[in-house]
Amino acid sequence: MSTLLEQLIESLRVLPGVGQKTAQRMAYHLLDRERDGGKRLAGVLAEALDHIGHCAQCRDFTESEICALCASGSRDRHQLCVVESPSDRLAIEQATGYRGLYFVLHGRLSPLDGIGPRELGLDALSARLAQGEVTELIIATNPTVEGEATAHYLAQLARQQGVRPSRLAHGVPLGGELEYVDRGTLAHAFGGRSEMS
Amino acid sequence: MSTLLEQLIESLRVLPGVGQKTAQRMAYHLLDRERDGGKRLAGVLAEALDHIGHCAQCRDFTESEICALCASGSRDRHQLCVVESPSDRLAIEQATGYRGLYFVLHGRLSPLDGIGPRELGLDALSARLAQGEVTELIIATNPTVEGEATAHYLAQLARQQGVRPSRLAHGVPLGGELEYVDRGTLAHAFGGRSEMS
Ligand SMILES: [Zn+2]
Ligand SMILES: [Zn+2]
Repeated sequence: MSTLLEQLIESLRVLPGVGQKTAQRMAYHLLDRERDGGKRLAGVLAEALDHIGHCAQCRDFTESEICALCASGSRDRHQLCVVESPSDRLAIEQATGYRGLYFVLHGRLSPLDGIGPRELGLDALSARLAQGEVTELIIATNPTVEGEATAHYLAQLARQQGVRPSRLAHGVPLGGELEYVDRGTLAHAFGGRSEMS
Repeated sequence: MSTLLEQLIESLRVLPGVGQKTAQRMAYHLLDRERDGGKRLAGVLAEALDHIGHCAQCRDFTESEICALCASGSRDRHQLCVVESPSDRLAIEQATGYRGLYFVLHGRLSPLDGIGPRELGLDALSARLAQGEVTELIIATNPTVEGEATAHYLAQLARQQGVRPSRLAHGVPLGGELEYVDRGTLAHAFGGRSEMS
């Protein structure tokens, strides 16, 4: 039987980038100096995991059926920007003046890991493009090998539905992750996106 | 009103070394891939904060009145090793063959931060030394400026009660933190501790 402290340290290792040593420091820190904050974290975490799901339209995280952005009446419904993760959506939203909608893949095509079109919700995306409201699909996957492969797949899917695919301009560093690109670069790349041939 | 997701990100920042960006990644990671682990963390964290307190004898964390080590019948009660933190106690326990008892300060003397002898439980330590069972006080505070000042204070306190103070041997790097010292160095320094003059 492990002690509560051992269980706490073990449980903290579920966090990304947190090994045994860091988990131990976190546990001691919470017990020594942040008991109130720790209790709040425990409560909010339980509630968040119970109530946060995926938006039925864009797949971003939300506690509602449809997220606030998709439900907004003031966004341009002819543009749809596809991103790999919610953090990428947030980075674009904060860095650019984009006023269209988003679609969040929660990943990228990675056949070796068993992540195909279905896992990324591409059947739903295809059906949405078929409805005819979207005229431009802005593909903002990461400039990595898998991100590029996913971009090509998405461009084909767009063309099949008569939708114009575009890709962020060069300026995003190769091999980088969108969410770590500085705002200026990201805004520039977004504004200078080019149609995919 | 902030969303549950925003509250979760904000709550995670209570963890040491976790800023906005890291908190965001942690939240997305839990929601995307670790819902079960996250729920377990929430439960264990709440329980740990409710039930883990300080051992009445050594001040280490425990969910009992007296911790397992203090309650053990097989430790040498004539030696008492003073450390700044539970992680330091763990490091010494794992690296050395020490069979005595511990006393955990949960900090070091730092007058500017309002941390004096009372905050470190030194009144209780003094009373314990006065009982006469302890013959050697092994002072294993960190080799930092504040750790050294604390060591000198502890050595005086020991001498007042007729207890021999000793300090870890040179070998622990100056300015370093005990818990990051490799086991070999720590074991060597512990074995070669010298009496304080
Ligand atoms: Zn949405
Ligand atoms: Zn104890």
